[in-house]
Amino acid sequence: MSELRKDPVTGRWVIISTERRKRPTDFRLESVRLAPDSACPFCEGHEEMTPRELLAHGRNGTAPDTPGWTLRVIPNQFPVLRVEGTLDRQAEGLFDKMNGIGAHEVIIESPKHEETLATLEAEAVEQVLWAAAARVQDLKRDHRFRYIIIFKNHGAAAGASLEHSHSQLIALPIVPREVRDEVDGARGHYETKERCVFCDILRQEMADTRRLIAENADMVAVAPYAPRFPFETWILPRRHQALFEEAPRHEYAALARLLGDILRRMNKALRMPPFNLLIHSAPVGEATGEYYHWHVEIIPKLTKVAGFEWATGFYLNPVAPEEAAQVLRDVRP
Amino acid sequence: MSELRKDPVTGRWVIISTERRKRPTDFRLESVRLAPDSACPFCEGHEEMTPRELLAHGRNGTAPDTPGWTLRVIPNQFPVLRVEGTLDRQAEGLFDKMNGIGAHEVIIESPKHEETLATLEAEAVEQVLWAAAARVQDLKRDHRFRYIIIFKNHGAAAGASLEHSHSQLIALPIVPREVRDEVDGARGHYETKERCVFCDILRQEMADTRRLIAENADMVAVAPYAPRFPFETWILPRRHQALFEEAPRHEYAALARLLGDILRRMNKALRMPPFNLLIHSAPVGEATGEYYHWHVEIIPKLTKVAGFEWATGFYLNPVAPEEAAQVLRDVRP
Repeated sequence: MSELRKDPVTGRWVIISTERRKRPTDFRLESVRLAPDSACPFCEGHEEMTPRELLAHGRNGTAPDTPGWTLRVIPNQFPVLRVEGTLDRQAEGLFDKMNGIGAHEVIIESPKHEETLATLEAEAVEQVLWAAAARVQDLKRDHRFRYIIIFKNHGAAAGASLEHSHSQLIALPIVPREVRDEVDGARGHYETKERCVFCDILRQEMADTRRLIAENADMVAVAPYAPRFPFETWILPRRHQALFEEAPRHEYAALARLLGDILRRMNKALRMPPFNLLIHSAPVGEATGEYYHWHVEIIPKLTKVAGFEWATGFYLNPVAPEEAAQVLRDVRP
Repeated sequence: MSELRKDPVTGRWVIISTERRKRPTDFRLESVRLAPDSACPFCEGHEEMTPRELLAHGRNGTAPDTPGWTLRVIPNQFPVLRVEGTLDRQAEGLFDKMNGIGAHEVIIESPKHEETLATLEAEAVEQVLWAAAARVQDLKRDHRFRYIIIFKNHGAAAGASLEHSHSQLIALPIVPREVRDEVDGARGHYETKERCVFCDILRQEMADTRRLIAENADMVAVAPYAPRFPFETWILPRRHQALFEEAPRHEYAALARLLGDILRRMNKALRMPPFNLLIHSAPVGEATGEYYHWHVEIIPKLTKVAGFEWATGFYLNPVAPEEAAQVLRDVRP
């Protein structure tokens, strides 16, 4: 029989329905294979094809927007939101709107086209996290921004328009709904129990172990109890902390190692799946320090979202997280 | 400049960002083309391949589960939720779960494999609505069910696993999140204004006309002000009514005509797009009559949902609803 499960943070229910499929890894998916592309604007040597860099790592005296870097951050050439202008909140009869003020940046994670977060050295992945944190710290100085989301689309099926490994940052003038639901849920838990719900989850998952995938000194990877998607994986810092951008450097190093490990496990078990990755951190300027707990979510793109999900917001997941965790635990690197 | 818009019912913000694309109808999509399939379990003559029918229309004395029908309703052969058993709500440490109790039915909309809601006669589409309403009325007698969702996946890219035209009903033991957000938003509006928010929207859209697509005596099709997806279209009854299943017969007839018209317009303007369709009606047994207003939502599958949307619940829509409405209005049938 299928099971309805409730996410303890947001209160969102999912249906875990494993009866329709054979093995937990049977998906018709588009494996992501990177092919060299001489027209790629993110490759080293093509710096003139992008907007001017905001930040670069690895330059030993080379000039901005020239070769000789290990990581670059640039404004998105086609930003969905722009820094210039004013919000101009206004009504349109019954409706509400404002100008698309925000920021949209791209972190080019490697000068080489064929690298991914799964193949890069841990030090290079750590550089990506470090650059993301630095950009968040800088963007937070603009008081119009209420939230800065860091995310990644890997593979065309996961929405990537360029295949060269990159992450994106979008600064928003509004705290978005998914984050609001997490923050409100975590506050509700804290008000009742005076404990962080994520710390409670970590403690239970460490004791239970069925949904535990991998861990190191600072970070734990689990399959969440009520995942929306098959093989959805969360990585949480053991230490309570609301803000990703204020984590100590050794936590970025630990996250980089565990993230690479998890992505290599997924590549092996799920045949190089497309995926989305996101970092949930607390909203800018809200006193969430006691109850919010930053974390990473990885969502392999294995199934199609259909009418039922759009109609209800209720997700149908054909793989139990206990099965997914076991598959990923059992991968031999 | 892009624009942030707020849905007046749910309060959900979207980003309308039209700068990245050329024409509003430029999408790389999978056109849905139906091919005859001798193994299709939904075709007339294959009744033995499906579970036994719950309801059929058009039988002139033919026996159940034999040919001679115009529409059949059957239990889903691989239901995501089952009627048998008890909910058994229970805790698992911090977590909450219950058994997958519910119902999952399929409405086979035509005996012929190549028909769709766009090619069927209006009377046949009306039969589909009528059958859906009858099944909802029947399922509501089971007091474990809090919500019954009617939806359709058309085309593999929209999640359809069988291409023969069909809709689905799922009865849920929980009011799902999207519906809860709509109902709560509508109640909030009613508490402040003592008016139905959907009636207010209809009035404003009729006066404004920029987002109006088509209408008839009982029904109005509009592009919503803050659509999550390009060419998202809502059809609302002019008359205030919370429950789809209690609509008078002439409203089903009017909806059938307008629905066919809208789908034919989409087929022409968007080259036979895959789509999802859903009916939002009030939750079972809640006194929402004064403020909720049933309606249909049609979502062509034109873009990919990516990391930003999963991370934030904030949708990025490359087509303004005013543009989408104009394209659909201008289609010559």
